Amino acid sequence: MSEKKFQYQLRVTYAHCTVGNHVYYSRYLDILEAARGEFFRHIGCTFLELQEGGTYFPVIGLELSYKGMARYDDVLTVELWLTAVNGARLNFGSRILNESGKSLVEGKTFHVCVSAEEKPKRLPPELIEKLKPFLHASTHAT
Amino acid sequence: MSEKKFQYQLRVTYAHCTVGNHVYYSRYLDILEAARGEFFRHIGCTFLELQEGGTYFPVIGLELSYKGMARYDDVLTVELWLTAVNGARLNFGSRILNESGKSLVEGKTFHVCVSAEEKPKRLPPELIEKLKPFLHASTHAT
Amino acid sequence: MSEKKFQYQLRVTYAHCTVGNHVYYSRYLDILEAARGEFFRHIGCTFLELQEGGTYFPVIGLELSYKGMARYDDVLTVELWLTAVNGARLNFGSRILNESGKSLVEGKTFHVCVSAEEKPKRLPPELIEKLKPFLHASTHAT
Amino acid sequence: MSEKKFQYQLRVTYAHCTVGNHVYYSRYLDILEAARGEFFRHIGCTFLELQEGGTYFPVIGLELSYKGMARYDDVLTVELWLTAVNGARLNFGSRILNESGKSLVEGKTFHVCVSAEEKPKRLPPELIEKLKPFLHASTHAT
Repeated sequence: MSEKKFQYQLRVTYAHCTVGNHVYYSRYLDILEAARGEFFRHIGCTFLELQEGGTYFPVIGLELSYKGMARYDDVLTVELWLTAVNGARLNFGSRILNESGKSLVEGKTFHVCVSAEEKPKRLPPELIEKLKPFLHASTHAT
Repeated sequence: MSEKKFQYQLRVTYAHCTVGNHVYYSRYLDILEAARGEFFRHIGCTFLELQEGGTYFPVIGLELSYKGMARYDDVLTVELWLTAVNGARLNFGSRILNESGKSLVEGKTFHVCVSAEEKPKRLPPELIEKLKPFLHASTHAT
Repeated sequence: MSEKKFQYQLRVTYAHCTVGNHVYYSRYLDILEAARGEFFRHIGCTFLELQEGGTYFPVIGLELSYKGMARYDDVLTVELWLTAVNGARLNFGSRILNESGKSLVEGKTFHVCVSAEEKPKRLPPELIEKLKPFLHASTHAT
Repeated sequence: MSEKKFQYQLRVTYAHCTVGNHVYYSRYLDILEAARGEFFRHIGCTFLELQEGGTYFPVIGLELSYKGMARYDDVLTVELWLTAVNGARLNFGSRILNESGKSLVEGKTFHVCVSAEEKPKRLPPELIEKLKPFLHASTHAT
């Protein structure tokens, strides 16, 4: 198993920040979603294409730990990998680092594969093939 | 003409603020839209009801002046009135004040009445009747 | 132990929503923070007053489950209570319901009490007294 | 006069969108600010550096026209130039285009140069030199 990580970078703007000159806690979810969008583009099927084919991945849960503060103008690196790809489940592991490599946010987002009618369905086999290189065994059980 | 103003109040949260402990300039647009939503509810036809009847009011333009800073936990009062109600046009005047009555933001938002197919159409006559008490003559021309 | 719950209500605006006409997953964190702010006001010490006294409660973690979708113009009720109040720790339980009583989001946010220099410190005793009525035993251990 | 334009690109995420699958009207202000931040970096003095030197550019006004809708996953190009650089004033012209070159948003943002104490002050001469290539004569008067 290759256990690859996908990386996405962005720069913190004023719109991300709040009182105290740091990134507001909810904006990290915006950042993680932007990273997931680029991840799907990277593996060769965008969210838009999946949706046009009737496949959606709503978030059904998440766990985040905040370990440090991102500041205005910081360049953040989001690392994404998969902790579960089976049946209708798709779970992401993620980490957000600043330029000095400090881990600021760590967490998981839990998704379910659904149809346009919001019924759960199995992940399409061709998508599973594309996702597998990013599946990490050590966190498989989570 | 009665020249009424509609008032809406809200408290500033961390999600509204940015670096420097003041409300971020784009969040005032969120606040104005929340106030417009409550204004339509107040006159007796909500956006939802209008939309279900095939009537939408997208923003086609706006002009804002920022005159002071709102701070975390401030209670803001939004004042809304109408500066034009004719044909397919609907223009709002607005002012956002803090608790000491200082005007922080003043501006106008310009809307057009459209159908579900995004074609401009005349404002429904029964809606015009409800809007008229809030039309201000002095700013009629804008 | 009284095991009270604090309730906060708000109406969903366009700024909360995303593609598909439902509230975007990160906006619930904005909503939970607004509710916590009103909770502290309710028990008699606002965040502002606490901060002026050098006491802050940054979020250090959270767990959320998304169980249903909130829609534009829904009136949401946020229920808040405490699952831990000891030492420097302050953990909130929360639930967001729509008007028909359906639970849409359930979760916990984990906070630590820090000084202006961001050093952990014990919760002030007078604050603990005010918080205690909202501490729920059944979830005490979490 | 060279009349250059600065260009900045970004991809629309779910966090930018609202009901009806288009970018929410306030998010364009977030996008314009991100573009201005990159513009200052491009000419060789970032907002952070300016601030550390006691120079700030708060927005004191804006005018926007909305001419079309940006959709999820669109790549937007922001064009920025200057319409006034004199005394304490700094005014930006801007345009946001989609991938087919359609202009979606056009407008101006008006800024004033202030000190850390929020007192207006003249733009630093070395900054004026860096800004001048982007000053457009035709819109000079605005």
